[in-house]
This record gives sequence, structure tokens and C-alpha cells, in this order.
Amino acid sequence: MTRGRDTSRDGFENKVEQFLFTNFKFFWDFVQQFDFLHRWLNKLLINYVVYKLPPRPHPFSTRSPYTSWESLTDRLWTGRHLPPAPEFNQEEKLPSLDDLAVLFKKRDGKTIFSEKSTLLFPYWVQWFTDGFLRVDPENRLKNTSNHEIDLSPVYGLKRSTTEKLRSKQGGKLKSQIINGEEYPPFLYADPKNNIFKEEFEGIYVPLRRVQEEVPAEKKSNFFAMGVERANVQIGYVMLNTLCLREHNRLCDLLAENYPDWDDERLFQTARNILVVTILKIVVEEYVNHITPYHFDVIADPTPFSHESWMRTNWMTVEFSLVYRWHSALPEELIYDGQTIPMESTLWSNDLLYNRGLGALFNEASSQPGCQIGLFNTADFLLPVELASINWGRQTQMASYNDYRENINHPRLTNFDQITGDVEAQRLLKQLYGEVENVEFYVGLYAEDPRKNSVIPLLIERLIAIDAFSVVLTNPLLAPRVFNENTFSPVGWQEIQKTQTLSDLVHRNVPDHHQRYRVTFDRSA
Amino acid sequence: MTRGRDTSRDGFENKVEQFLFTNFKFFWDFVQQFDFLHRWLNKLLINYVVYKLPPRPHPFSTRSPYTSWESLTDRLWTGRHLPPAPEFNQEEKLPSLDDLAVLFKKRDGKTIFSEKSTLLFPYWVQWFTDGFLRVDPENRLKNTSNHEIDLSPVYGLKRSTTEKLRSKQGGKLKSQIINGEEYPPFLYADPKNNIFKEEFEGIYVPLRRVQEEVPAEKKSNFFAMGVERANVQIGYVMLNTLCLREHNRLCDLLAENYPDWDDERLFQTARNILVVTILKIVVEEYVNHITPYHFDVIADPTPFSHESWMRTNWMTVEFSLVYRWHSALPEELIYDGQTIPMESTLWSNDLLYNRGLGALFNEASSQPGCQIGLFNTADFLLPVELASINWGRQTQMASYNDYRENINHPRLTNFDQITGDVEAQRLLKQLYGEVENVEFYVGLYAEDPRKNSVIPLLIERLIAIDAFSVVLTNPLLAPRVFNENTFSPVGWQEIQKTQTLSDLVHRNVPDHHQRYRVTFDRSA
Repeated sequence: MTRGRDTSRDGFENKVEQFLFTNFKFFWDFVQQFDFLHRWLNKLLINYVVYKLPPRPHPFSTRSPYTSWESLTDRLWTGRHLPPAPEFNQEEKLPSLDDLAVLFKKRDGKTIFSEKSTLLFPYWVQWFTDGFLRVDPENRLKNTSNHEIDLSPVYGLKRSTTEKLRSKQGGKLKSQIINGEEYPPFLYADPKNNIFKEEFEGIYVPLRRVQEEVPAEKKSNFFAMGVERANVQIGYVMLNTLCLREHNRLCDLLAENYPDWDDERLFQTARNILVVTILKIVVEEYVNHITPYHFDVIADPTPFSHESWMRTNWMTVEFSLVYRWHSALPEELIYDGQTIPMESTLWSNDLLYNRGLGALFNEASSQPGCQIGLFNTADFLLPVELASINWGRQTQMASYNDYRENINHPRLTNFDQITGDVEAQRLLKQLYGEVENVEFYVGLYAEDPRKNSVIPLLIERLIAIDAFSVVLTNPLLAPRVFNENTFSPVGWQEIQKTQTLSDLVHRNVPDHHQRYRVTFDRSA
Repeated sequence: MTRGRDTSRDGFENKVEQFLFTNFKFFWDFVQQFDFLHRWLNKLLINYVVYKLPPRPHPFSTRSPYTSWESLTDRLWTGRHLPPAPEFNQEEKLPSLDDLAVLFKKRDGKTIFSEKSTLLFPYWVQWFTDGFLRVDPENRLKNTSNHEIDLSPVYGLKRSTTEKLRSKQGGKLKSQIINGEEYPPFLYADPKNNIFKEEFEGIYVPLRRVQEEVPAEKKSNFFAMGVERANVQIGYVMLNTLCLREHNRLCDLLAENYPDWDDERLFQTARNILVVTILKIVVEEYVNHITPYHFDVIADPTPFSHESWMRTNWMTVEFSLVYRWHSALPEELIYDGQTIPMESTLWSNDLLYNRGLGALFNEASSQPGCQIGLFNTADFLLPVELASINWGRQTQMASYNDYRENINHPRLTNFDQITGDVEAQRLLKQLYGEVENVEFYVGLYAEDPRKNSVIPLLIERLIAIDAFSVVLTNPLLAPRVFNENTFSPVGWQEIQKTQTLSDLVHRNVPDHHQRYRVTFDRSA
């Protein structure tokens, strides 16, 4: 069903770039042996990637189709790289949403597994992105994001939430011990009637569908965590639990070294350390897993202070749409040696605390995730795909070809330039008639997967711009902040010491000598 | 009473700098004839000035004496350049506030008038700074600022306020005609009982002392404007009224040229144009009035996108303290040919609408303001001076000498290095004992006035850093925003056309042919 894709419109520069970065491994390995050279190339390449689009402030947000004081300053509205395209998004010109389901639904129920990623990868993606890509359910043109990677799933979006999650003793977050391991405390006093424990009243507005549809037995296992979606799936809860343990571990370590610090200072400093530790893992483990290149980026924030992209973060509609990797989540998983439906891992924290954190990280790292692209979305997530397309229409996104052009990729003229998959070509033609009519979201995910890469090319291009410019503008990485004063000498050491998610897991499980597999990489 | 100041600790670089910029007028005049050279020097000098302190983000705010996620992100707390100095601010080490009044009180009731500035200058200062330097009356460590020059005195601090001020017709602000001139509408329905008109309910939280102390007859003349202090003094109301008229004039102009625009777009675009017009006047008329230099800075935002100071604005305690120019306001003024107490111009809008905007601008530009410094504060403002010193203590400001050192000025060792005024030296010595004990606020204003300069040197140095980095980071001046698309071609023309405050006044008075004097400059 797949024949060669027509690459004539890929763009010369793109081809050269891909060729250079995915070949000459000996060269890339060599230059990375020299710290100075590695850092210099790191700066060069990150700038090369981020400057592919002009930097913030963007003239437009979802506030209005023209620039206003509010569109420039009110981040409750979502940013956007290109202005709205009302012409393109006229309902009668676009296929019906239901008709588009066939593009995402699995073919003959067959799952395409990722050659590169473990199941831990989509677990991380959902947890990580939910911290900053947050559509406001009350008005989908708005958002509830803090526009920073601040670990809001762990600490909450607002100070009032954080206060409710803190034990106010030794800087620690509230927690409980189950089977000898530390977890967040339970949330509900009366799950049947949707009543939170008094200490967690008003912690956040719960999702309506959780109130109405999740059975009380499941809710009785809900943990009190930072955001309304935090209990959604065991992967999310695993990562939140890991952060809670690390936060509390850091508090003990700091208290030991700085006995005169009060609860407040211990809390704030542990949080500073944890946020930066996660940022480091994001750049050095997660990003390098996603890309197919021989060059490993490093989390070195120091050389960018004079870059024009060092501007206030503002999450964009585009960033949100290129980051919807629903197809990466398999329909089934192996849990304790049994194959169970992924759906049964939703809102089910007992699956985590019955087995323990180490065992579940091990398991998620020992089975594959799925390939990101068409014909590979689990049935229970199909409505989410269609909702994403619909959101693209509500926000009046410009076309797939407009976005290609915006980033200096040639406009495509034929469906076989998007994908080599003959059936995808046929369906796209049937649905859209002309390549010019293809919607942004559909075009993104219709592009062919690439060798040794987790995502297709246009997604990679666009995501890199927002991702690097969001991570590296984090205020904790700023020139006068990223130092021992902010994290304490002991905290600074902890940051240096942590290289991988595996490091984090292994110091936060009961038996420190037990080795678990903790990796995004199937071949690791 | 004045003998020569000991200049041995002024610092060599400072001396050279002052010498170069206040001499060689022929050279400066010559280079400014060439647009390219003028712009190049403008960039060079603004950078030179702003880089005297390290750029934002500052590690500290009033949130805590150490760096935390909140101190880095929550702008309800006020920023600060130097960390708090609790040691220095111990009550027993500092003179009592009441004892310090003698430093600010006029000597034998004698006012020192400014050789350079008209009364319009302090009028502008109060109006302009109230838009962004805003201490929160509920918690003086916090602020109510939007941290941008957004003309909040005109448009309000929040969207809900703006909505109440808008007529929702043709983009205009609500207004009324008195004696054939346009003014904001009256605010109160029942001034005796402090009840606003229904349409203005909840527009802002009124000041307690206005509620309790200002008589109902005065309140019946209050205008509905953006902030709780907007009716405070006729100078403030003059500038707000001018902006209202210009906004509504721009709306007419835009509506004429873009007949299909709705109220919303007309409003937003007029606001964009007006904000940038004011920014231009700030840099090109106001800043150049303040400094004694032969070089005229220009409002050219284009060359700074790669500067590391192009970071999110955050008002600092220092910026607020160096900008308290209470002594610039005389005790009396000439109004309609009569000398009247300045106090009688407080909360008294009838003084404005009885005479008209042009006449009052003319009058304020035809009489002097006062010199900024010690021994020159009007009696009714003495409590405000002492409150400022007290606020410096609450925010635990480092010493005057610490701030000198921070900006590479030598620490002073003797009181005669601060000022040549013998009585000031004697009083400072009596109050503080050692120069090292002098508080930031007191030291700032104790420095000798300089020839042809509105402010002493350390104030100028510190204010320039925050001022330029606040003005030039305004999102309306950003690379992809500062263009015809944002302001419309007609609006862009209006911005280019406006050079001075006088231009603004003359197009917003009933008789366009009448010439008024509108200037900060006594010798203009």
C-alpha cells in the first residue's frame, strides 16, 4: 500500500539539512567529544532551529483578527504564529468531521508500533504537555496555561492550589504511604457525591465528565494533585508521584544541610531544583529521543541571552496542535504480564499503588509505544482527534500549505508529496479534492514517518521553535538566576548529578539496589 | 550656605562621561544632522545607559529574600535590583521618620524654583508615573501595576474598567461636553453617599481618604477615568482629558477611512496609536527635557531586538523611589492671574472645565515648577516624603552607598561628597552619623542639583535603566508589531506627524487657530 513518496517538493535546503544531520555519525560523535565545540554547535543549531520563524511577541492571538493591546498582553487568549484564515475555514469548503475519522482509525484494527519509542514515551508526553498546553473548557479560544514549564501538574496552576497541596512541614508536599511507598494523599471525602476532603476544597474545578461519568470506586483512589486532569491515566500519575517523591526527598536533603531554613524556603528551593531537573531531562533525554539526528542537544541556557527569541512565553495554537500525539498510545498494554485494554488504565490509581512505581516504570519501558501518524489512533481516542481538527477550525488555522510556506517549505501540489501511502493519498484526495484544501492538523499527521524519528518533518520543525524558546526562557535558567544562590550549593549539585529519568526513579523507590528499566528508547 | 562639593569620589568614568555629553555642543549638533549617525549613536548610548545594571529577570522581588518560583513570576510582588538588607534597616539604627522631615521642609518657607522646568513638568510626571508605578494600598510590598505603559489612567487597569469607560459607539470613550469642550463623564450619582453612577459601578476601588475626606461638592465634579487617583489634581485631569479627546478624534479619523470597521476595532486601533504617540513624546520631549546633554534621544525601537535587556517588564522598588519628585510641585500657582494654593487644585475639576484645556496648558507652561531635591517640598506633601522613606524601610532597601557601588560609582566617605550645601551636610551628619548609614531615598535627593539637569546624577543613572528598558520593550514597539498593520496606514501617519505634546493639545482644543504655550521647558 506504500510506494515511494514524491520528494520533488521537499525543498533543497531541507534535504541537505536532513542529509547532514542524519549521516556522518563519526563526525558528530567526534565533535561532541570536545565540550567547547559541543556547546558552540549546540548554540548554533538551537538558534538555527528557533529562528525558522520570527520570534515573539506575535502580533496575533485568538483575541481578534487584528492587533490590539489585549492581543499583545492578555495571555488568557492563546497565541498564534499566523493570523486567522476565515476564508479557508468556511464550513461548506471543508469535509465533515465524521468523514475524517477514517484517516485516523486503525486499518483492519491493526496497530503500527513505534520502532523507536517505548510506552513510557506517550506517558511522558501527556504528563509533560498537560502542564502548559491547556485549552480553557469554558471558551476554547482561551487557555488556562501559566505559559511556563512550572510543573503545574505537581504544584497546581495557582498559589491557592499549591497551598492546599503543601504539608507546611519541612517544605514537603502532603503524601501518604501505601505498601511502603510514598504517594499523594487521596482527594475525595465522599466520591459518590463528588465531595473533596475539606483540606482540598476548591483545589481546582473538576472536569464535568469526571464528575458525571467516572464511578465512585475509581474516584475513591484519586490523588490530590495539581490539575483537574492529573488522575487521568496511570502514566500521568506515575510521573506526578515521581516528582512528589523527589520534591520531598530534596526537602530532607536541604533541611539536613540548611537546618535554619523554614518550611517556606525549603519548599521553594526544592521546587526550583525539581523544575530545572525536569527541564534538563526534557532537553537531554526527551528531545534527543524524538529527533533522528546524530547531534545531542544539551540543556545549556547560558549562550542565549542576546537572542531575539528570548521573549516572554506565550503558548500558541500551533504548538498545541503539533503536540497532539494521541496515536502514540496503544489500544492495549501489558500489565503484570497480562494484556489489558488501555482504557482500563484511565482514572485507575489502584493499578499503580498495587504494583509500585519501579515495577510500572519498568513495564512501561519494556513494551512499545505506537507510531505517530494516520491510521493508528485507538478507538477510544478517535473523538479526541476529531475534536482537535474541530478546534483548528474554531481557531481558523491557515492551511497546511500556508504553514509549509511560512516556514520556507515549498507548497505541495500533489497528495503523493505528503505521503507515500497510497490509501492515505486516495482518502485525502477524496476528502479534500486539492492539496491546497488540506487542513493544518490533517496535513501534519499525514506526512510520512521518517527513519529513526518519532515525528514527521513539519511537526518537528514547528514544535522545535516553540519548545526550545519555551524551555530556555524559563526564568530559572536566566543569567542571574541559574546559579548556586537560587538552588543552594547542595541543590546545584543535585541538578548536575541528574542525567536521566532513570536517575530520578532509582533514587525514589524503596529498594535502591533494585534495577528497573526506565527509558523512552526501545533499543536502549 | 553652599560651598564647593568634594568631587574626589565622583568616579573618573562618571566625570569623563558628564564632560563629554555636556560639552562639544557643535559636535553633537553636527552628528545629529545625519539620520543614520543619529540612530547609530542613539542605539549606542541607550545601550550604554541600560547596561549599567544587569537586565531582568531579577532574581529578587519583594516576595522573599531568596529566589523562588513566585519571586520570578508573580508580578503582584514588586521587583528589585538589589536583595533586601534587613541588617541595614533595623529600626534602632535609623533616625526616626519625624526627625527626617527637616531635610525636606522648605527653609524659611522659601521655594527653590526650577531653572529649567515649567509647572507642566510635575503635572506630567505625576500623571505619567501613576500609570505604572502603583503600590498596592492593601499590602505595600505588592503593587497594582500592569508593568507596561498602557495608559491605564485613561483606559483602566483591567478590561472590566475599560468596558465601563467605552461608549461602544464608533470606538469612542464616553464623554460629555462642557462649555463647548469634551471631558470625561461625571462619575458619581450620589457623591454625598459615595455612590457611583450605575454604569460606573465597580469601575475601581476608590481611595479610602477620598471616600472619607473629600467633600461631596468636589466629588460631584469627579470624572469617570481609569484609576482611583485620576481626579487627584488638575494637571492629572488635563492630561487624561487630552488623551480622551485624542482617542475620540482618532476614532473619527479611522471611521472615516475604514468605514467597515466596528466599534471594537476602532477602539483598539485608536488605543494602539495613542499609546505609541505618548511613548514617542516620553522619549523625544520628556526625557530630553530631563537630561542636561547635547544629544537628543529618539524613539527608535528597531535596533534593540537582540539586547539582553529586552525582557518582560517588572516595575522595581528602586524605579518607584527614584521617581518620587514631590519637591517639583510648588506650594502655590498662578491660576487665571491669581496666586492660589496648590492644595486647592486637588480633586477640583471645576478649575479645569471652567477655563478650558488650552488655557490651562498655556498657564502651566508659563510658570515654573520647582527644583527636585532637599529643602523644597510643599508642606502638604511632607507626609508623602516621609511615607516614601518608610516604604524604603519596609522594603528593606540597601543603603545609598550600596546602590552607588552597585552601579560602579565609588562609595562616599564624607557628607561633603554628597552635597555642597553646608546645612544639608550638617543635618545629614547629625541624623546619620556616618555616610555609610545614609538611606537610599535620602541620599538620592540630597545630591546636588546639576547645571541644566532636572535631577541629580544617581537618580538619572538609575531611572534611565528602568525607563528605557520599560518604554522600548512595549509590545507595540516590537519588530512585527510596530508597523502599518497594527496602527492602520492612517494611524501610522498620525504617529509620524506627532512630535510634541503641543501638537496633541493644539489639535484637541475647540479653536484650532488659537496658539497656546505647551512646554516642559521654561526657556522654550
